[in-house]
Amino acid sequence: MLKDFETKKREEKSSLNAEISELQSKLLGQQQLLMKAKLPVIVLIEGWSASGKGSLIKEFISELDPRFYHVESPKVLPESEERFPFLYQYVKSIPVNGKVTFLDSGWMENVVRKYLRHEITKDEYRHRIRQVNELERQLRDSGYVILKIFLHINKAVQYDRLFELVENPATEWRVDKDDLWQHKEYKRFMEAYDEFMDKTGDIAGWHVLDGSRHKTATRDALKLLVQRIDRAVQEGRYEGITSEEDFPLKEMPKLAEVDLSQSMDDEEYKKELKKLQNRINELHNIIYRKRIPVILCYEGWDAAGKGGNIRRLTYALDPRGFDVHPIAAPQPSEAARHYLWRFWTRLPKSGHICIFDRTWYGRVMVERLEGFCSEKEWRRAYHEINEFERMMTEWGAVLLKFWIHIDQDVQLERFTDRENTPEKQWKITDEDWRNREKWDEYEVVVDEMLEKTSTRNAPWYIIESNDKKYARIKTLRIIVKALEKACEKHFRRTME
Amino acid sequence: MLKDFETKKREEKSSLNAEISELQSKLLGQQQLLMKAKLPVIVLIEGWSASGKGSLIKEFISELDPRFYHVESPKVLPESEERFPFLYQYVKSIPVNGKVTFLDSGWMENVVRKYLRHEITKDEYRHRIRQVNELERQLRDSGYVILKIFLHINKAVQYDRLFELVENPATEWRVDKDDLWQHKEYKRFMEAYDEFMDKTGDIAGWHVLDGSRHKTATRDALKLLVQRIDRAVQEGRYEGITSEEDFPLKEMPKLAEVDLSQSMDDEEYKKELKKLQNRINELHNIIYRKRIPVILCYEGWDAAGKGGNIRRLTYALDPRGFDVHPIAAPQPSEAARHYLWRFWTRLPKSGHICIFDRTWYGRVMVERLEGFCSEKEWRRAYHEINEFERMMTEWGAVLLKFWIHIDQDVQLERFTDRENTPEKQWKITDEDWRNREKWDEYEVVVDEMLEKTSTRNAPWYIIESNDKKYARIKTLRIIVKALEKACEKHFRRTME
Repeated sequence: MLKDFETKKREEKSSLNAEISELQSKLLGQQQLLMKAKLPVIVLIEGWSASGKGSLIKEFISELDPRFYHVESPKVLPESEERFPFLYQYVKSIPVNGKVTFLDSGWMENVVRKYLRHEITKDEYRHRIRQVNELERQLRDSGYVILKIFLHINKAVQYDRLFELVENPATEWRVDKDDLWQHKEYKRFMEAYDEFMDKTGDIAGWHVLDGSRHKTATRDALKLLVQRIDRAVQEGRYEGITSEEDFPLKEMPKLAEVDLSQSMDDEEYKKELKKLQNRINELHNIIYRKRIPVILCYEGWDAAGKGGNIRRLTYALDPRGFDVHPIAAPQPSEAARHYLWRFWTRLPKSGHICIFDRTWYGRVMVERLEGFCSEKEWRRAYHEINEFERMMTEWGAVLLKFWIHIDQDVQLERFTDRENTPEKQWKITDEDWRNREKWDEYEVVVDEMLEKTSTRNAPWYIIESNDKKYARIKTLRIIVKALEKACEKHFRRTME
Repeated sequence: MLKDFETKKREEKSSLNAEISELQSKLLGQQQLLMKAKLPVIVLIEGWSASGKGSLIKEFISELDPRFYHVESPKVLPESEERFPFLYQYVKSIPVNGKVTFLDSGWMENVVRKYLRHEITKDEYRHRIRQVNELERQLRDSGYVILKIFLHINKAVQYDRLFELVENPATEWRVDKDDLWQHKEYKRFMEAYDEFMDKTGDIAGWHVLDGSRHKTATRDALKLLVQRIDRAVQEGRYEGITSEEDFPLKEMPKLAEVDLSQSMDDEEYKKELKKLQNRINELHNIIYRKRIPVILCYEGWDAAGKGGNIRRLTYALDPRGFDVHPIAAPQPSEAARHYLWRFWTRLPKSGHICIFDRTWYGRVMVERLEGFCSEKEWRRAYHEINEFERMMTEWGAVLLKFWIHIDQDVQLERFTDRENTPEKQWKITDEDWRNREKWDEYEVVVDEMLEKTSTRNAPWYIIESNDKKYARIKTLRIIVKALEKACEKHFRRTME
């Protein structure tokens, strides 16, 4: 009897091993298919401490070509030490088309642990779950294949494994106090994991695997991935359509209605400029100490005066505390990822100011008009951008968006001036003239953009810039007001 | 009398202001020249705390286009918290061709402060000064323009400035205990700064400016930069020649002399593989805890078996603690910087293992043979690489270099096998066949590479790989031995 039992077990084991090998070979073969289909894949592996996440990843990659995948093991920092939005590190690690990222725990562990530690409020917890769903949907809609696995072990198994690790001097360091705390709070974690999976299974479903049986879990995980890739390759790249959520919007005027006659005389300008720059300099100190992130976005017509406007601002700032990001056509590594990736990766650390000279709105302006993206893509973008900006303001960022506005006559004057002044010639290109010819088309898309993305938390400001001095002062005043409000709010929040 | 004096002062001030404006405009004009000449510029601004480094940078950039420059303010971490070689953060921030990086203090502050804090030994201090000179020479030789400024203030001025900052609640946080400590230790710092400048002025000279007179220092600094750029643009990109230092070398056999007949039977292979993988897994734990950085370099003939060899190694490792970097042709942003930049930026954190599948040796092999670099460049590279690798081992890294070796017959067999096996076809390209035709040329350059870069601290290991099993076992044994030695040495060092 017992002998038969043993034989059967042995046979099972060797057949499991054979299955695993076969699946690993299949996965190896899929590399080329994925590359050809340019499909990016994210494998998120969540689960209990000591449930075998690392070992599972080892089996996933054991036959793969290192050019093809990347393993990330993001840490969960205490909320007080986080200098970026909590999704930042995960977004940063999304793969380029044709490649796979394995995440050794991710946004789930981050949200659940912080919530159980009382590092975030119930409200923040809810926001973050919504943000996770938004991120997953945005990735899926732009063609990302997402597989989510949860490795489950019960409390007794976890105890045995942690005990074994702790007992061995060579592996003792692998168990940290978070692991022990999780074990102690096993029940609370169980409920929280459950709730999280409940609320985040719509875009990409969760697969719970039995972490206490390593071989079986490996086989099942491999099978899930192989099947998922097979399906994705067969169906071709998924492209989502726009999803409608009503963001509360501020009403915007049409550009044609904007009165551009304002101006400012030189004396008042100089006085005001100095005053505002001094004030911004003071506020920069507070922003820095209070770790408030600031994101300033400049869009506008060619020659509207964005550069000069930005320089009047940066002159007031400590160069150690800000960055200007001029946005041009994306690099290959940027074009091969979700289009917001290159903005995510340029976000300021909390306490820093970053200035975007042109922004993610390129999607719904130049990329739309020049056909650099599909109609679905730019239609989807309004909503994705509103979500992205809400993530930023929920993170605590001050986010201001300026449309630097001039009329066609003034643009012509400035273009001509640039052409006639040797030191300014580099500023004017054939492309500027081509864009100018499309003024009317641009006006339509800009109006639509202003209408659809002027949310209450991140409204647009139209800056009348026929007179550059007026425009600079107006911009600086808006910045001062917003920074003052943020410093005050932050102050109140810490007082409560 | 006094009235005249005042008038004169006012005139002086306004003429200084005019000079500064003029120099700022000139610098603005030079942007385009630098871009055209593709010259990268590094402006290093060192100096006392509160000497005005930040304000000076503000004046440098006030008229510039943000696309054109980048400001970096690197922190000096305590040595015990440094996870990378001390030069890492500075190398990381070097500009691409045509752009400028402003460093708000850099390698000088790093070395001096750590030395005065007794965080590094006298020996390490000496090594670092040598490394600074090596880095500056490598950058200069590949066309970088380097301007080094030191802002000097005396103890009394520093006192006043620190006092003023501390007194004002808005700026108090700007003074940290390092600043106060520096003030207290003014004399020791003075001597140390002096000594450092003395020992690092050969490649790029130091310019000491009077930080107590902001306007004058600004004018002088601007003038220095404008003149330096003028000269560089006129003279054109500098290209250094090879500099000879005798690195102690290990004698290497010619490839033709290597006996490739070794092999290993399957049973022994399996047993040994398992044993070695287990041992490496144990050692990885120790490496991680002791924060020893490990850099493993794989070079070799096409189809020599690098990939399979690497996989046998990585299977033994925790995926959270290693990275494989497959090296192909450089990206545009890499090609536009010093050629070692893309390797510097891929260095492992201390305690991590990184595996280069092809390496910086591309310079003296494929780039040399295909004419992707100039003769001066590849000739210089042997020496630059030896220096680079010494920086790594002086940092404490284990650095191993494997030449995976086969003969032409075996390569032909493997190529043919790849062509005839559908799943392997992606592994073989026309380029492989073209490279194969150049076998003899490659053999010459590889022999030269092995001869010139097999230093005592980072020797080459030739891995006979006609039999892949033999090769894998041999590689793993070398790795095990080296890691054991490193762990032991590290252990001894901490015991002393």
